[in-house]
Amino acid sequence: MVTRAGIVVTGTEVLTGRVPDRNGPWLAEELRRLGVDVGHVVVVGDRPDDLRATLAFLGGLGTDLVITTGGLGPTADDLTAQVVAAHQGRSSAVDAGLEQRVAAVVERLMARRGWRSDPEATAAGVRKQATVPEGATVLEPVGTAPGLVVPPADGRTGPPVVVLPGPPGELRGMWPDAVAAAPVRAVLAGAGELRQETLRLWGTLEAQLAGTLREIEPELAGLEITTCLREGELEIVTRFAPDAQPAYDRLATVIGQRYADTLFSTGPALDELVVSALADRGLTIATGESCTGGLLAARLTERAGSSAYVLGGVTAYADSAKEQVLGVPAAVLAEHGAVSPEVARALAEGARDRFGAAIGVGITGIAGPGGGTAAKPVGTVHVCVVAPDGADQRALALFGSRSAVRERSVTMALHLLRQLLLGGPPA
Amino acid sequence: MVTRAGIVVTGTEVLTGRVPDRNGPWLAEELRRLGVDVGHVVVVGDRPDDLRATLAFLGGLGTDLVITTGGLGPTADDLTAQVVAAHQGRSSAVDAGLEQRVAAVVERLMARRGWRSDPEATAAGVRKQATVPEGATVLEPVGTAPGLVVPPADGRTGPPVVVLPGPPGELRGMWPDAVAAAPVRAVLAGAGELRQETLRLWGTLEAQLAGTLREIEPELAGLEITTCLREGELEIVTRFAPDAQPAYDRLATVIGQRYADTLFSTGPALDELVVSALADRGLTIATGESCTGGLLAARLTERAGSSAYVLGGVTAYADSAKEQVLGVPAAVLAEHGAVSPEVARALAEGARDRFGAAIGVGITGIAGPGGGTAAKPVGTVHVCVVAPDGADQRALALFGSRSAVRERSVTMALHLLRQLLLGGPPA
Repeated sequence: MVTRAGIVVTGTEVLTGRVPDRNGPWLAEELRRLGVDVGHVVVVGDRPDDLRATLAFLGGLGTDLVITTGGLGPTADDLTAQVVAAHQGRSSAVDAGLEQRVAAVVERLMARRGWRSDPEATAAGVRKQATVPEGATVLEPVGTAPGLVVPPADGRTGPPVVVLPGPPGELRGMWPDAVAAAPVRAVLAGAGELRQETLRLWGTLEAQLAGTLREIEPELAGLEITTCLREGELEIVTRFAPDAQPAYDRLATVIGQRYADTLFSTGPALDELVVSALADRGLTIATGESCTGGLLAARLTERAGSSAYVLGGVTAYADSAKEQVLGVPAAVLAEHGAVSPEVARALAEGARDRFGAAIGVGITGIAGPGGGTAAKPVGTVHVCVVAPDGADQRALALFGSRSAVRERSVTMALHLLRQLLLGGPPA
Repeated sequence: MVTRAGIVVTGTEVLTGRVPDRNGPWLAEELRRLGVDVGHVVVVGDRPDDLRATLAFLGGLGTDLVITTGGLGPTADDLTAQVVAAHQGRSSAVDAGLEQRVAAVVERLMARRGWRSDPEATAAGVRKQATVPEGATVLEPVGTAPGLVVPPADGRTGPPVVVLPGPPGELRGMWPDAVAAAPVRAVLAGAGELRQETLRLWGTLEAQLAGTLREIEPELAGLEITTCLREGELEIVTRFAPDAQPAYDRLATVIGQRYADTLFSTGPALDELVVSALADRGLTIATGESCTGGLLAARLTERAGSSAYVLGGVTAYADSAKEQVLGVPAAVLAEHGAVSPEVARALAEGARDRFGAAIGVGITGIAGPGGGTAAKPVGTVHVCVVAPDGADQRALALFGSRSAVRERSVTMALHLLRQLLLGGPPA
């Protein structure tokens, strides 16, 4: 029997898309490491009826553990703790010690920010946050809101509910305490190991892969395989219990044989491959970006320690910036236009030389929605990498929105880097 | 009676957080414009039982319309169309005309990318994608996957289910056809207008606002108010039917009076305020970023037409880059260190002068997790803006992960810009 969890993300701001949910995915991965499979992530607004119905739905599915995020703030629309208490058949009361601890946190916070305060309003909010269902385990606040682990009241059935705050930093800080709480430990004791492996192809159509999977299906028992195509990359993610390891090995062997010309990773994501190669080989890099406006530099500096290989980059949006900051010759701009293979190369070389880096990357294109012409429609992008081992470049004709064109251009630059640094499938 | 929809996002890749869901939020906002309120967004893996249970759950809630996204690909794990057909009590059959049209699209796609193809595997995938529940409306493919509108079979009850593909570009392209389909039109005919307004505060604690809302609660009937704190910004979003407009006007008046010193917007988001101010005043801008690695430049160039005001930016990650590319004096770096108010100012002035812009922004700091010292711990960030009307800068002590520190630094730079360009609450 697989141990299963359901996640409830509360907050009208998430439901309406104003704030992306960063907790559901993080919790799903943490739970997988603990051997727990997540069946559903349900996003609900700050409405008690909707939250109540969701808790009943997940309980009815035979879920072993329910985790809620958000709705623990001091305002009246934050009502998770009350609804969960009622769902589990428990009454609530103010925990005086907790009230004092939360009050102290709020005071420090306001003092540090120098914000004004109305003591009465603040106290009402604190009292709300310190109201705890009887029999629940309190998870000490990381920010101002305490978390809770609420088992069903005696005589009731259903999974324990872990109540966590919405801010990702607070939730993550509180997670070890949640995992250590007795009702959660009891659920985890029954969970086995759940492995997850990823194969990544660049340049294979999903339909083609589907044919291969159908063909070897009888050998794949015990594997949960999902394929996902994004930005031209085909990701095969497989989840399995340890006893299905031989089936997974067989899958990996078949894919390795039949897709040798497009399989570029048996694990790490593209960005990891590229920055590891830079770090391992002691190579430095600099970027010269036009239409991507700094996205490549931002992505290369996402990981800690990136100062070891990223020297910097220039977003040369205006033609004058291309000339003055990266030394793209005015004649090249005039002859070929800013969106041209020649300018992509000049941006790459300019960035490399300006920063004194080993590798330079240049990107220039038309991200749209305006600015296209018949000869150079929106989505026309030129990407160039100059590296010690050689140079390579691509002319792209991309589809989609402005942000899609920008993101795909960056991805293509990373594939060019990957291929120049590591070999493997062509970019 | 409010018209309500439920959204089902399918795909183990979304459930496990490898791919963020961009469809749920987009659909929620489109539906709101049509007067339809979204009650739940449910993310499920590619497992028929879980999808089946979710459709039953949403139907049982009295939902008027269900929309699914994803699971329409050619691989066996893509099973939305079959499960929805069974849920609505309809059998399915291959639509020969549709099969030909999908095949033509796949052929063009493979030819353009120059990818290899196994005709038999491809044909099986196409046939799967062209299998349609009887009585359903087909939504012509934008990519390769057609969408569907599937009403319940005669004698069954429950909402119609709109089946849309997962790739955001395909889903959005198909949306007008989905809205025009007869079963959807019938639902929309009953929907009223649903307004949404946003107030934004910078520097007010959520508990403080909660007190105000409690105090004037009797005057707020008919408003659904949600507050959300992120990156120090307190967002008050209110949804209401037209007859509650006077109540909303009263709320806006009270907030405007009591929070005049922190209310910075009665609508537009921070980024929009800043770029509109740049465009309106004809001011150009350039950035000099260290720890944020290009994120500010990327954010300033997110909107179409940004070349009118963004000249460019430099990511000066290495000290040598700060000196050589932006002219930060070596003596300043040596005396104050790279993370200092002096260097933030030199980066801002260097960017402004290097690009010949009206405004320069400099950011330097320690994003972590490594690199902190007792004197300059992780989260120490200096932000400076030099503009024609004056200059301003901030020393920040931020908390949280590397990405949180980077994002908050960029937000602070935008607030400094906002205040210098537009006045209003201090950054």
